[in-house]
Amino acid sequence: MTHAHARAGATTGGQGAVALLDRTRAVVDPRLRSTVETLPGSIRRVAMYHFGWEEADGTPATGQAGKAIRPALVLAAARALGGDPAPAVRAATAVELAHNFTLLHDDIVDEDPTRRHRPTAWNVFGVPDALMTGDAMLALALRLLAEDGHPASAAASARLAACVIELCAGQQADCAFEQRPPQEVTLDECLAMATAKTGALLGCSCALGALYAGAGEREVAALDAFGREAGLAFQLIDDLIGIWGDPDRTGKPAGADLVAHKKSLPVVAALTSGTVAGAELAGLYAEPALDEAGVRAAADAVERAGARDWAQTEAADRMARAVHELSLAVPDLEAAGDLLALAEFVTRRSR
Amino acid sequence: MTHAHARAGATTGGQGAVALLDRTRAVVDPRLRSTVETLPGSIRRVAMYHFGWEEADGTPATGQAGKAIRPALVLAAARALGGDPAPAVRAATAVELAHNFTLLHDDIVDEDPTRRHRPTAWNVFGVPDALMTGDAMLALALRLLAEDGHPASAAASARLAACVIELCAGQQADCAFEQRPPQEVTLDECLAMATAKTGALLGCSCALGALYAGAGEREVAALDAFGREAGLAFQLIDDLIGIWGDPDRTGKPAGADLVAHKKSLPVVAALTSGTVAGAELAGLYAEPALDEAGVRAAADAVERAGARDWAQTEAADRMARAVHELSLAVPDLEAAGDLLALAEFVTRRSR
Repeated sequence: MTHAHARAGATTGGQGAVALLDRTRAVVDPRLRSTVETLPGSIRRVAMYHFGWEEADGTPATGQAGKAIRPALVLAAARALGGDPAPAVRAATAVELAHNFTLLHDDIVDEDPTRRHRPTAWNVFGVPDALMTGDAMLALALRLLAEDGHPASAAASARLAACVIELCAGQQADCAFEQRPPQEVTLDECLAMATAKTGALLGCSCALGALYAGAGEREVAALDAFGREAGLAFQLIDDLIGIWGDPDRTGKPAGADLVAHKKSLPVVAALTSGTVAGAELAGLYAEPALDEAGVRAAADAVERAGARDWAQTEAADRMARAVHELSLAVPDLEAAGDLLALAEFVTRRSR
Repeated sequence: MTHAHARAGATTGGQGAVALLDRTRAVVDPRLRSTVETLPGSIRRVAMYHFGWEEADGTPATGQAGKAIRPALVLAAARALGGDPAPAVRAATAVELAHNFTLLHDDIVDEDPTRRHRPTAWNVFGVPDALMTGDAMLALALRLLAEDGHPASAAASARLAACVIELCAGQQADCAFEQRPPQEVTLDECLAMATAKTGALLGCSCALGALYAGAGEREVAALDAFGREAGLAFQLIDDLIGIWGDPDRTGKPAGADLVAHKKSLPVVAALTSGTVAGAELAGLYAEPALDEAGVRAAADAVERAGARDWAQTEAADRMARAVHELSLAVPDLEAAGDLLALAEFVTRRSR
């Protein structure tokens, strides 16, 4: 049902989403760049590097700032609710700045060495510079909204700030989970964390688009819920790819998350399943490292514990909820087409 | 002239400032606390610890959240411009949250082990938790303003966000200076850094108070300049204390900044003075450590290079400029009394 809905609504399916993202970048990237260029001196340089516009030495680079999924959601939500997307470009830019603030800080906290096939900002410029640049980028996002004369700007500002607080709590919970014994993290805690880390900003992007279209509270809440549910569906599918891979699309080997002992949603579902297979997985996760056979055994244990089926069903269920929420605010599926195409793109995209 | 001005204007001098800060805390602290208590789970806990309201294990603590100089400036500025300070309490709270965001992140970047006589948040909870809590606190500050129905809230929000960007650039510059050879940092760069790091938020506090009093652009700019100049005067005096001490007030030994090889304003003034004494100081700073005689020799070199006199004159000059700026917006020195008392308190306060 979900897919039937989504396909009916999507103007031209996945191709439509790709074209939509291209059009979004064409509109948002110049604004994003000119906004980032207002940052002072050294902070600007780190930000220009992070977005892929400059090399570490300041020479121009041809990188791409990102897929622009969140800005596309802002503009598509504004259109779906009958609004003019042009004034919402500022909100789309703010959301992309806020997203990149989280990337800069998450890479520090997770000690990730690379992002978008390049060394991360902290890796190149050191933790202090990357930290301060993230801070400035968050302030810039909220400044952009506060300086807007649009009637929705205060509400959008408050909503984005509240979302950032939720994102921080989600990231904090994620770090805390990694330090707790595997069986102690409940699936509910894990779902709440994923909602905060992944769903909140997707929901906020849709809500900001609705606000800029002059939508009422009920529509704004429905758009937020649409983005959150789609975000959780995305996370579940991303977690499945992290175990069983999606080799023909990404080339990423299966089992990557298992090698890293990541407590992804299917892993936690298995660990907390009370099954023999769940206990086997706990045993395998207790090992400091897993060889190829160990990774296969772990993936097999997740599947036998019923967690692969659970994650697939849960993802489909979340997408169904997302579509339902969207239909509350946008009964005309034609008008909702772009949002559905983006949701489908997000949940199918390669890692 | 500066002091005559300041004393004439101060309602009851230093005592007045102390009473003013007490009254500010009585009004702002409950609001600050109830706002911080809205933060989610673990982030709230780190924030409650940071403010001194809870111990690390979550039991109540009797600590004090800080002197509340910035909130006091907000409220005093609102009063000085004939406004009702009551609606400005929200802005005062936002400014204190933003200040504490900088403390949480600066302590990470500077690897400071203690703050307000207690282990710093990163030291107790780890870098990820302290970093995320700082992020959430910044978002909370800007959310508080965005959710305010006051006519000044959008302008205040934009101004605070712009100030945070400046603070980040200042902190980034400070870190960068510490890694450059001593003679390469110019005094102008150093003054700009101190203005960004210390003056900007004091100026912003005064500007926010003026905005909440409904003041015009000219008054707001003058109040901002007043806070910035007073902030730089404070920094210069703080730097003098870091070399020659203020033992009867703080018990802090003289020479602390020299032991730490800190490139404070008088030190940079001496290093860039082109004098023999400046070259001597550079030689002493090239040593990995200074013994008691070395610290005395370094302090003596700063003095012989003319940098002690320079810092004292510059501080007095900055205070004079601060008073001049204030007089542009508030010609009635009676009305400006509280702001002058706070400026005098800040520039005389113990470290």
